[in-house]
Amino acid sequence: MTNSLGLMFRVTIFGESHGRCVGVIVEGCPAGMALTSSHIQMELDRRRPGQNSLTTSRGEEDQVEILSGVFNGLTTGAPICMLVWNRDKDSSDYERRRWMPRPGHADWTTHVRYGGFNDYRGGGMFSGRITAGFVMAGAIAKRLLMGSLGVEVLAHSKEIGGVVSPDVSVDKIRANVESNPVRCGSPEVAEKMAERIREAAAEGDSVGGVVECLALNLPAGVGEPVFGTLEGDLARALYSIPAVKAVEFGLGRGFSSLKGSESNDAYTLKDGKIETETNNAGGILGGLSTGMPIRCTVTFKPTPSIRKKQKTVNLSTMKETTIEIKGRHDPCIVPRAVPVVEGMVAVVLADQAIRAGLIQRVMEKRG
Amino acid sequence: MTNSLGLMFRVTIFGESHGRCVGVIVEGCPAGMALTSSHIQMELDRRRPGQNSLTTSRGEEDQVEILSGVFNGLTTGAPICMLVWNRDKDSSDYERRRWMPRPGHADWTTHVRYGGFNDYRGGGMFSGRITAGFVMAGAIAKRLLMGSLGVEVLAHSKEIGGVVSPDVSVDKIRANVESNPVRCGSPEVAEKMAERIREAAAEGDSVGGVVECLALNLPAGVGEPVFGTLEGDLARALYSIPAVKAVEFGLGRGFSSLKGSESNDAYTLKDGKIETETNNAGGILGGLSTGMPIRCTVTFKPTPSIRKKQKTVNLSTMKETTIEIKGRHDPCIVPRAVPVVEGMVAVVLADQAIRAGLIQRVMEKRG
Amino acid sequence: MTNSLGLMFRVTIFGESHGRCVGVIVEGCPAGMALTSSHIQMELDRRRPGQNSLTTSRGEEDQVEILSGVFNGLTTGAPICMLVWNRDKDSSDYERRRWMPRPGHADWTTHVRYGGFNDYRGGGMFSGRITAGFVMAGAIAKRLLMGSLGVEVLAHSKEIGGVVSPDVSVDKIRANVESNPVRCGSPEVAEKMAERIREAAAEGDSVGGVVECLALNLPAGVGEPVFGTLEGDLARALYSIPAVKAVEFGLGRGFSSLKGSESNDAYTLKDGKIETETNNAGGILGGLSTGMPIRCTVTFKPTPSIRKKQKTVNLSTMKETTIEIKGRHDPCIVPRAVPVVEGMVAVVLADQAIRAGLIQRVMEKRG
Amino acid sequence: MTNSLGLMFRVTIFGESHGRCVGVIVEGCPAGMALTSSHIQMELDRRRPGQNSLTTSRGEEDQVEILSGVFNGLTTGAPICMLVWNRDKDSSDYERRRWMPRPGHADWTTHVRYGGFNDYRGGGMFSGRITAGFVMAGAIAKRLLMGSLGVEVLAHSKEIGGVVSPDVSVDKIRANVESNPVRCGSPEVAEKMAERIREAAAEGDSVGGVVECLALNLPAGVGEPVFGTLEGDLARALYSIPAVKAVEFGLGRGFSSLKGSESNDAYTLKDGKIETETNNAGGILGGLSTGMPIRCTVTFKPTPSIRKKQKTVNLSTMKETTIEIKGRHDPCIVPRAVPVVEGMVAVVLADQAIRAGLIQRVMEKRG
Repeated sequence: MTNSLGLMFRVTIFGESHGRCVGVIVEGCPAGMALTSSHIQMELDRRRPGQNSLTTSRGEEDQVEILSGVFNGLTTGAPICMLVWNRDKDSSDYERRRWMPRPGHADWTTHVRYGGFNDYRGGGMFSGRITAGFVMAGAIAKRLLMGSLGVEVLAHSKEIGGVVSPDVSVDKIRANVESNPVRCGSPEVAEKMAERIREAAAEGDSVGGVVECLALNLPAGVGEPVFGTLEGDLARALYSIPAVKAVEFGLGRGFSSLKGSESNDAYTLKDGKIETETNNAGGILGGLSTGMPIRCTVTFKPTPSIRKKQKTVNLSTMKETTIEIKGRHDPCIVPRAVPVVEGMVAVVLADQAIRAGLIQRVMEKRG
Repeated sequence: MTNSLGLMFRVTIFGESHGRCVGVIVEGCPAGMALTSSHIQMELDRRRPGQNSLTTSRGEEDQVEILSGVFNGLTTGAPICMLVWNRDKDSSDYERRRWMPRPGHADWTTHVRYGGFNDYRGGGMFSGRITAGFVMAGAIAKRLLMGSLGVEVLAHSKEIGGVVSPDVSVDKIRANVESNPVRCGSPEVAEKMAERIREAAAEGDSVGGVVECLALNLPAGVGEPVFGTLEGDLARALYSIPAVKAVEFGLGRGFSSLKGSESNDAYTLKDGKIETETNNAGGILGGLSTGMPIRCTVTFKPTPSIRKKQKTVNLSTMKETTIEIKGRHDPCIVPRAVPVVEGMVAVVLADQAIRAGLIQRVMEKRG
Repeated sequence: MTNSLGLMFRVTIFGESHGRCVGVIVEGCPAGMALTSSHIQMELDRRRPGQNSLTTSRGEEDQVEILSGVFNGLTTGAPICMLVWNRDKDSSDYERRRWMPRPGHADWTTHVRYGGFNDYRGGGMFSGRITAGFVMAGAIAKRLLMGSLGVEVLAHSKEIGGVVSPDVSVDKIRANVESNPVRCGSPEVAEKMAERIREAAAEGDSVGGVVECLALNLPAGVGEPVFGTLEGDLARALYSIPAVKAVEFGLGRGFSSLKGSESNDAYTLKDGKIETETNNAGGILGGLSTGMPIRCTVTFKPTPSIRKKQKTVNLSTMKETTIEIKGRHDPCIVPRAVPVVEGMVAVVLADQAIRAGLIQRVMEKRG
Repeated sequence: MTNSLGLMFRVTIFGESHGRCVGVIVEGCPAGMALTSSHIQMELDRRRPGQNSLTTSRGEEDQVEILSGVFNGLTTGAPICMLVWNRDKDSSDYERRRWMPRPGHADWTTHVRYGGFNDYRGGGMFSGRITAGFVMAGAIAKRLLMGSLGVEVLAHSKEIGGVVSPDVSVDKIRANVESNPVRCGSPEVAEKMAERIREAAAEGDSVGGVVECLALNLPAGVGEPVFGTLEGDLARALYSIPAVKAVEFGLGRGFSSLKGSESNDAYTLKDGKIETETNNAGGILGGLSTGMPIRCTVTFKPTPSIRKKQKTVNLSTMKETTIEIKGRHDPCIVPRAVPVVEGMVAVVLADQAIRAGLIQRVMEKRG
């Protein structure tokens, strides 16, 4: 019932993992922005299953169809409805273990909430597949932010299965994130991360990790008190991505062991403009942007679908039993989550930038 | 412009640190619940400045006034407006350094957003004082949750300035949290935390920390996809508390170095009811409650107001300068933040429980 | 940007007249309600173009496709996305008069709002065709209201082109509304209305009219102060139907020349239950339902598309000119608007009934 | 639970007729607008009881207090909370007939909705007194619209008790509306209206009427599809005023007996700008403003409080009985409703103008 996000740039999600499609409606994109399927497809391809040996082999092409809101290659101001059809769905394993909730999944909680009427195949609308809609919406938001404000949203894998990437420059992230299968900014660390994923997969197990996301060039003053802080709106959006269990800004949890004199960011002048010398705050003070890069880290738990035997309860017989999950699951969701995190961050920033009056109604003049 | 939170149980904040008052409107509390000022005051007193030697000496009594929505000691179903008046405000230091944004505060970002028209005294509506409204609303939410569902919301100081409390039982938290000035569940650790705060204060510095919050007895199935997850709604509410920079659920950031076989919570039967053997997920799967205790951790950065000399820029002359902040500031905000965190968690859970159809319209029958 | 309606039962519209499709997402329908395409199609067929000689000859079959939210013939609690494809679209006339705003249409106002980027073909998303989405959503709302509360929503043509139907009984409306092409409760008056429409059509002109809508069996106490009154929520929804220019409740405009002693509805007992002797208020007092039938009247202006020559301005040359509108337009929209009015009334009442706690989460038990 | 109105300019109402106060919070007013109590008071005085012999003698001074959001005589961007205290309340008559719902009032419907816990004194929050909050919010909206866009909102009494004012010019309305006690644009008709009210009052009865409201100089293109039409948003706001039973735009109900060729407004050029020759549409097409004056008519039913004997049912004994209402009631609410209608129209237009990007963030430069 809360399938919409945003006030002025608004995203509404529909669809299920094993239903007919997964889709999204985007409202509030100004009229007159050039938009074609290829702009969306480019981002969808980054999230697509079956990209390489580290991801699920479910063979979805995930070709976007734009159903409304675009005319002659330009946005019209009307709601933009987009979807991808589900083609390669195999529900047999789900029928087989219909009454056995998988540990770490939403099977049990949705069974209770919907009185057993939810679409249990592949997790239904609680599946990670729903994030295809996040990426489609994010593609529009990224294009809008870049075209109007020059804002760039950029994420990469910071940790996977305990392998931690050192801090690398923005240039290095840009250069490397799409050139290795784990989407790590450091090519050296990327190989170790991939190895860790392969080990887990070989054991029938899975690993978690951390995505770091940056937003560059966002002007100061974006965000809204009291309940529309940048941190709060971003966190709410990021927690809608399945498997996210921690969202931090700047030093995040690290602030707890510091002193004020160590953690405050001093103001300074650079080329006549006010900046902070450090950016411990992750570009946000009082819930509003400081003009420095927005920086957040998003922790994903390990994929709950594992081949190893796990304890569960049969809801039909109400007896304890065990389950071994077959199927085509990612041993680590983090690499494919990178464009999803970017998309949600872009959606929130587009909404807040419009609310702050920074994005004009018509972006480009008709020729 | 986003001063409201919640869909069916809704909180709207107003007021400023050095204005006339700080207040809140609560909508959606069912008619017929017993409610007097003393129910609110009890929680406000836990947040009040000047409680002990570790907190600010600003001498506010923070006596709640209920302006609407209560008749003959019972809620009427109409909006409940409550406020505390500001009595002991001293704006002289703020006038003196009107153009010098304090590092770590919202002075600069609000200056940009509001074109210099914001009330800069004491941070205006970006002050921590605004959380008096959170606590007043939270007092109603806590009473509603306990009276209707038996849900208890309980927080305590888990870390302060690097001093970490071990995990303690719920009973121990209940017994100890109000008996030591840092609100730590472990009396032994409490003394070390207090010592750490005193050290920082003596140096004119400050420390950060972590509040852990539990919600007990929440039924399974509360929360809403896709953008109304319990984690997302709680995080958004908690990030509205000034100085919060990380919000985690269950193992939180710790999930990143675990395997699925280590982090999944196995299902089991206890007295014929389904439970999980562990609660790594913090009581939430798929954004919905599992029936196990909700557990989140909230990291506060060190109080940005410190006496130590800091670099800043004079916005009037646009020259670099330094600032030393005088005034009556908490060297650590964490102990007073405990009831604030409880309040925001209760507000979100009350809203979600109503949305899930779990709280009836009229709670008590008229005699 | 405000393409959604409702708080707990929520409708989101997308699509355009000459784009690929017209669709709607319905959120908040409880899980477990039986729902098939035929339930939707039945209502869509009442709105379909080309029903008879009085309506447009645009040959749309308007076959509903359900894309999500239904599994095994039952609602799942997930968003229900439905659409009809546009098959018989002819945009040639629109291209020809691209720069000439049609009087009485939204061509000029949308041109200004969207900087000329709106989809001008057939009015784009401002077309009456968008109401196919209202009817699809309304079909679900009607089914939900009837199945859970026994509420019946029933509309008919009360006036067309100055021909006024006398008040007829509910039974007579039920019996006759679908048996004559103008959907009038009185068969005798129906023929006069049809004649009036034919006359106007023969002249290349059009006529307006009034739809009266009743909702029976709605319990007392539904609706919400201050800004969620039944009248306000219904009016807002009804004004979203293109061509509506007046919405009245009970005696409506007629109240202005009455005295309080004439217009107040006296309370009385009937079979031990409280009723009012008259129902001048249209079943609503203080914005809440009284338990008597809800009664509203909705005035539609004449179809603005007429063959007669009209003055307009060429937006490209900025010179005055004239326009004669060709194409397949209804000479009177009122008969096809009857199911649209019912649909919007049902959507609002379903939302308000859920907010009032009257509709339970799971309607039917799984066998 | 729906005590807020607006998306970007947002109004939240609290308080009761016989409680401590009636108040309102306004969010979204740009920072930097000059605002003092006297700007608000000027409008409140137009709504104040006891203005003259035609209105209630309840002796409220209704002096506004601004509690937040204004600093040094300028708005800060923070929520503006304002209230008037209730001083002259006499609840004795309400206690006496506690269980006897007054015909035409919300006593019965609120009793059902709130299980008897609502504040029944003076109608509680369902009282017309709540509109003091509408007027306070409207005063800010009017000032914002005029200062930023030159938009003027202007209402007058068009009909009272069957006495109808002819159409008068805007200049005549401006000149006369505050110079006669019924607020009619025509001084000659005003006297007849006053006479009609006095007659009804002498009989212990009451009369209804119609307020017409104009908004001048609103640019074209304001309003939002599908569910944010100007008509829909205005109607929803106007129906929140107690006693309103019809809202019409332009010719309103009159469209039903016209032909398209008679009712369409032809486009023409005036000084190089596009206008319509007539304004039958009331300045709105497709839910968006045309640039012509917005014109709506709002019908008020007769004041339900009359001295004449009426039938009702005693809710305590569940027996039929009669009631004669004493107290200090307006025999016609229309004259005092004029500033209330203006206020609500201004609130909606301010919200929509901000959403359309027409009102900038900071209106005036700091000196």
